[in-house]
Amino acid sequence: MSVTYPSGFTAAGITVGLKPSGSPDLALVHNRGRSDAVAAVYTANRCKANPVLWSQQASADGRARAVVLNSGGANCYTGDFGFETTHLTAEKAAELLGLSALDVLICSTGLIGVGGQDFRDRIVGGLPEITAAAAEGPDSGKAAAEAIMTTDTVAKTVACDGPGYRIGGMAKGAGMLAPALATMLVVITTDADLGAAQLDSALRTATARSFDRLDTDGCMSTNDTVILMSSGEAESADLTEFTERLTEVCVDLAGQLHRDAEGAHHDIVITTRGAASEDEAVEVSRAVARSNLFKAAIFGEDPNWGRVVAQVGTTAARFEPDAIDVTINGVPVCIASSPGADRDEVRFGREVTVEIDLHAGDHRASIWTSDLTHDYVEENSAYST
Amino acid sequence: MSVTYPSGFTAAGITVGLKPSGSPDLALVHNRGRSDAVAAVYTANRCKANPVLWSQQASADGRARAVVLNSGGANCYTGDFGFETTHLTAEKAAELLGLSALDVLICSTGLIGVGGQDFRDRIVGGLPEITAAAAEGPDSGKAAAEAIMTTDTVAKTVACDGPGYRIGGMAKGAGMLAPALATMLVVITTDADLGAAQLDSALRTATARSFDRLDTDGCMSTNDTVILMSSGEAESADLTEFTERLTEVCVDLAGQLHRDAEGAHHDIVITTRGAASEDEAVEVSRAVARSNLFKAAIFGEDPNWGRVVAQVGTTAARFEPDAIDVTINGVPVCIASSPGADRDEVRFGREVTVEIDLHAGDHRASIWTSDLTHDYVEENSAYST
Repeated sequence: MSVTYPSGFTAAGITVGLKPSGSPDLALVHNRGRSDAVAAVYTANRCKANPVLWSQQASADGRARAVVLNSGGANCYTGDFGFETTHLTAEKAAELLGLSALDVLICSTGLIGVGGQDFRDRIVGGLPEITAAAAEGPDSGKAAAEAIMTTDTVAKTVACDGPGYRIGGMAKGAGMLAPALATMLVVITTDADLGAAQLDSALRTATARSFDRLDTDGCMSTNDTVILMSSGEAESADLTEFTERLTEVCVDLAGQLHRDAEGAHHDIVITTRGAASEDEAVEVSRAVARSNLFKAAIFGEDPNWGRVVAQVGTTAARFEPDAIDVTINGVPVCIASSPGADRDEVRFGREVTVEIDLHAGDHRASIWTSDLTHDYVEENSAYST
Repeated sequence: MSVTYPSGFTAAGITVGLKPSGSPDLALVHNRGRSDAVAAVYTANRCKANPVLWSQQASADGRARAVVLNSGGANCYTGDFGFETTHLTAEKAAELLGLSALDVLICSTGLIGVGGQDFRDRIVGGLPEITAAAAEGPDSGKAAAEAIMTTDTVAKTVACDGPGYRIGGMAKGAGMLAPALATMLVVITTDADLGAAQLDSALRTATARSFDRLDTDGCMSTNDTVILMSSGEAESADLTEFTERLTEVCVDLAGQLHRDAEGAHHDIVITTRGAASEDEAVEVSRAVARSNLFKAAIFGEDPNWGRVVAQVGTTAARFEPDAIDVTINGVPVCIASSPGADRDEVRFGREVTVEIDLHAGDHRASIWTSDLTHDYVEENSAYST
């Protein structure tokens, strides 16, 4: 399933030895359909990894046939050698698949600064095996999803039926999940016969309301990439309908990333309503999601609404400082900027909802974040050692 | 010493029962000198505590004679009752000291949402005792500094000699230390005979290069206040010279706050040099100081420069993405945006220095922050319970 659910796609995942654990670390998604239309969004980080620099150029014409993805090294800040490795990977994969190098997009994930000779040799050396594996059959979508995992504890995949077409997808990401994409690699496939401009429109709308609303730790990655490919093997689709379905797919994958966030004990959804604009609702929700004090309080199952209000006050959103309501897990703990219901009434489970009402308009938006836990500190202080 | 080091000031610190621990919790600083000139800077948070709302109004004319400070409750988001408590405190203190209510500034620190009837009764009830205590002698500066502690482990005071005048100060703050002042209350006194406008100019310059450079956890408080009072009991002073000395005093106090930051195992100074402007140097240093991944890495004594570069890339500062150097504890681990010296060469102690060179100009600025530790998570998940 996964990326091979729509007609026209094959995939594979193999082990080439990039990870000390010996887990799968190289993936391929190949579009063999009538169309080669593609759209992609990349990290807004100005310090972009080599595969992002390459793929931005290669996808600029709205055409691509294959994506090669690796875990076990980000190939970011690895100098000219690192960029040459990306280029060489695309050339060799293209040769094996009968494509031009610019038809091959590259994604990498892992530690920044990793991308030396050994990294190059293992990836390039593994291309004959992975292209052969992908040629064998369409059922390797799961293997591809597993090969892009880093600190992920589960593979993330999705399959969805539209009227006369299918959408499939895979994603990785567990930390450094923040705005303008989390540290995530996502490949979404469809057989709906849509052109590159339509795919681009749909993808930008869908990511803005899904991956861009995920902000587990405020850290923006250098390698974030979301790719949408169409094989054109099915019917065309109504763009509005397709965009809605694609948004559901992206929300599903983003939810999987959220639930697997590094070290999280609570999955928190912060919703700001009554905002004067959707952007202001996002700004307020994100400001709260970025507060370490708030996130540590939720870890301790402490409905500390003061830390919510304090973050609201750091934003430029329109509101009256004495008219803010805060509701935690359904209990209105702060009403009109004063203590409301008894905080002891708040019950905690894995899911935590925080609702902020600014009483300044009719717009709303949610940001998904995680609590700040001992496990987060532990995982992220030990990651590279 | 502390705030009573310059001529003309008395102070006191007593216990009125706001804290369950029974530690001192009410402080008073009283200016009995010839001048009543005052300057103050307050939190940029739009959700301001009641004492901030009061003191902003009361200090607007550049005149004040006394500051009443309490720990054990922030009196923030406590509604009209909370504001009336602040007003009542100023009125009663003024009556006891022979002043008008607008000559009395109020500062509170502790939990947001705490400021009910019991809070009011204890503070107002303690005013006769504290005004009497302050009248007894000038040597209670230390007691005042102790009475404003919350999670602080040590009292923070400073005393400094200028040519013909003195400066003294006290500060509290250990968490929620972030821009536009940390969660801090600071009272600085001087006998230098300077007018309110001169004090204001000096204080804004000094805080911009001291307290505003402290960003331990990215969280901005609702109660931050820095007050500078002059008794005019000594000579006048050259404004440039006074500003330099005041900046030293503020840097000293900010350093004390830094070293006492909640849960910190490492005191980190992030310096960006080669920036096109000082503001851009601040922006870059602050972006790194806000990265939980970077802060967790330093806790693990991992010189993970990739997490530094990734944060640099989130800023709007001018730089070429392939020309960034990162030096950690003197070891150039990243040169021209590529791996530099072996990261194993980096040695760690309590003090950690991170230097980023953007190669884009001649400006530099440092931000002081802390690592992200288990103790930070523990202290901040258990604070209100």
